[in-house]
Amino acid sequence: MQVCGIIAEFNPFHKGHDRLLTAVREQLPEARLVCVMSGPFTQRGEPAILDKWARAEAAVAAGMNVVFELHSAWATASLQSFSFGAVKTLAATGLVTHLAFGSESGNLPELNHMAALLQRPTATFQQVLKAALAKGAPFAVAQQGALEMACGARGLQDRPNDRLAISYLRFAPTDWTALAVQRDTCHDGALSARAIRQALQQNRLPANYLTAESASQLKKATTNGWLWPHLADFYTALQLRLINLPVAEISRITGCSEGMAVRLRRAARTAESFDAWLDTALDRHLFETTLSRAALQLLLPVSTPAQVPYLRVLAADAEGRRCLRAIQQTASTPLVTNTGRDGKKLTSKAQAALQADVARQEATRLLQTAPAYRRPMRDYYEPPRMV
Amino acid sequence: MQVCGIIAEFNPFHKGHDRLLTAVREQLPEARLVCVMSGPFTQRGEPAILDKWARAEAAVAAGMNVVFELHSAWATASLQSFSFGAVKTLAATGLVTHLAFGSESGNLPELNHMAALLQRPTATFQQVLKAALAKGAPFAVAQQGALEMACGARGLQDRPNDRLAISYLRFAPTDWTALAVQRDTCHDGALSARAIRQALQQNRLPANYLTAESASQLKKATTNGWLWPHLADFYTALQLRLINLPVAEISRITGCSEGMAVRLRRAARTAESFDAWLDTALDRHLFETTLSRAALQLLLPVSTPAQVPYLRVLAADAEGRRCLRAIQQTASTPLVTNTGRDGKKLTSKAQAALQADVARQEATRLLQTAPAYRRPMRDYYEPPRMV
Repeated sequence: MQVCGIIAEFNPFHKGHDRLLTAVREQLPEARLVCVMSGPFTQRGEPAILDKWARAEAAVAAGMNVVFELHSAWATASLQSFSFGAVKTLAATGLVTHLAFGSESGNLPELNHMAALLQRPTATFQQVLKAALAKGAPFAVAQQGALEMACGARGLQDRPNDRLAISYLRFAPTDWTALAVQRDTCHDGALSARAIRQALQQNRLPANYLTAESASQLKKATTNGWLWPHLADFYTALQLRLINLPVAEISRITGCSEGMAVRLRRAARTAESFDAWLDTALDRHLFETTLSRAALQLLLPVSTPAQVPYLRVLAADAEGRRCLRAIQQTASTPLVTNTGRDGKKLTSKAQAALQADVARQEATRLLQTAPAYRRPMRDYYEPPRMV
Repeated sequence: MQVCGIIAEFNPFHKGHDRLLTAVREQLPEARLVCVMSGPFTQRGEPAILDKWARAEAAVAAGMNVVFELHSAWATASLQSFSFGAVKTLAATGLVTHLAFGSESGNLPELNHMAALLQRPTATFQQVLKAALAKGAPFAVAQQGALEMACGARGLQDRPNDRLAISYLRFAPTDWTALAVQRDTCHDGALSARAIRQALQQNRLPANYLTAESASQLKKATTNGWLWPHLADFYTALQLRLINLPVAEISRITGCSEGMAVRLRRAARTAESFDAWLDTALDRHLFETTLSRAALQLLLPVSTPAQVPYLRVLAADAEGRRCLRAIQQTASTPLVTNTGRDGKKLTSKAQAALQADVARQEATRLLQTAPAYRRPMRDYYEPPRMV
């Protein structure tokens, strides 16, 4: 059986995602599609625009067979940890044979070469990397420069999907077949997920760029009083944490240097809003997403599990349910479809990981005001969406 | 030299406080009056109605010579720890000879007897206490019952000043002279500080019950945009903490039992406001103040110091400044009048305690909206009020 893994956020699900699925179906008509997706918070350290069940459902409506939730520690980590956790989660099914991803270049040999370099850095690569870091470049920028130098490539900073692909390939089992689906943004006119989110924040629904299912979900959500969530609503809580924690502790929780931790705290004292805090705390060594993730980690700390704690099912179609029955036999970690029932059977470490996932889902509830969206403990009564 | 210690919150300073000072001055005309006062948060676990400098200034205007700040860990602790910290702070001056307090009964022999019982419990006392606890009574209630039984006294639950007095006397050095100033609430018609706070929350200024200085302060504060502070503004932050922390950790931070910690967390999931949270979490084993203090400790955790870390001066008059010069020679712990300068000379433990005091002061700033009241780090630029 061919089972193709896909790593995604679907924040929200849009036509670009749809085209990726279509391309995979064309190239692998026999394959089941299994996805691992960020839950309530995304890799940018921000709350997802719609809840995880809705996003998973839109993906299944577009042809995905199963959607698993990526554990929140990995979902909101650096590109490297995100990729590691996502690939390991797909591998834990024991069933995945292929890995598909979007790619600007579509140049699989180059991507594989770069992935191999990251995994087994050459002396030259390490020299270039160290020199860039010494000049004060953020790690991701220094790494890109070293990769380009070592491979004679260019323009990696304008190829976010290639950067992700390299990171996935780095951790992918050697027996997986990779499928680089070339993106053609000029031709297909897709808006990025980020541009779509910005339009939504400005009360526009860019329906042309969304699938019908996703557009209908987004429209229905606002009609029902759903608010586009933003970490800014937790700013007082963030200030209290930063004001109160010793610098060493801020540094430990966020993984920032002590100097950076001092900066985060100082900014919390003077900045009157979350956006002002980001502006004040930013410097050339840091990306905004690193700051957002640090804020999230201060508000809702999550420890990174040593291994995949469980496979949490968010949605599946009929084919996906057959897949899940097979996975039950092949998986290296328990399946969780009913949080209450299956949660009890987990090891204590996996239970703690589940509690962290539940806590982060609970937190997003506080960003809503409509009573329907403030019902507590949805993780315990919301079954996977069986489409 | 006679130096009389007074323990207070002045939240806000009112005519009842004024009468206590007058009575002490009548009975000890030669004495200097030295006060230890709660800082930004009070023993009820709530933010003080006015900032600590204003409250200290009102007290000096009414005849107090020096006001020290009680370290925030003690200021927001149980009656027992509050009393312990306050008495030890006064004792650390090395100069106090008397201790004055209000008392409903004015019955010093009885108060001393009860204090001795708390310090060296008899077998009978312990039996009665244990029996009441076994029936599920809150500790304070069980202790009151046992004290009454052992001393043949009555009505301690209606004598909050006597309960405080007993607790002070328990920890007071044996060479201090106690002065129980009888309160006569019927005769003098004083409103309690609590009733005054309630009136203020309802936009009434009960000037008849306030000193001229205190009434003028309160009026000026509202004119300048000061908001009566309430822990409710931190409710989202509290929810995030309770949702996210493991029960064992909630229990460790708050000192609540694990069962109670579960209750606090469950309430945070369902209650839509801080007041609703208090209502939901309350049960017969618990007082509302215990819950407020638990909330504060979750939001702004402070470790209790093993000994008095420093003597922080908030206000003094000319006589008080002479007193402070004497204390500089006699104190068992450093004087802090300039936070930046004196803070640097403290031991690392005392510096950590000072940081905690500063953090709690910073937090109260977030409860205000007027720019004048949102200036950060007031502890570092606000000198003691030298009246």
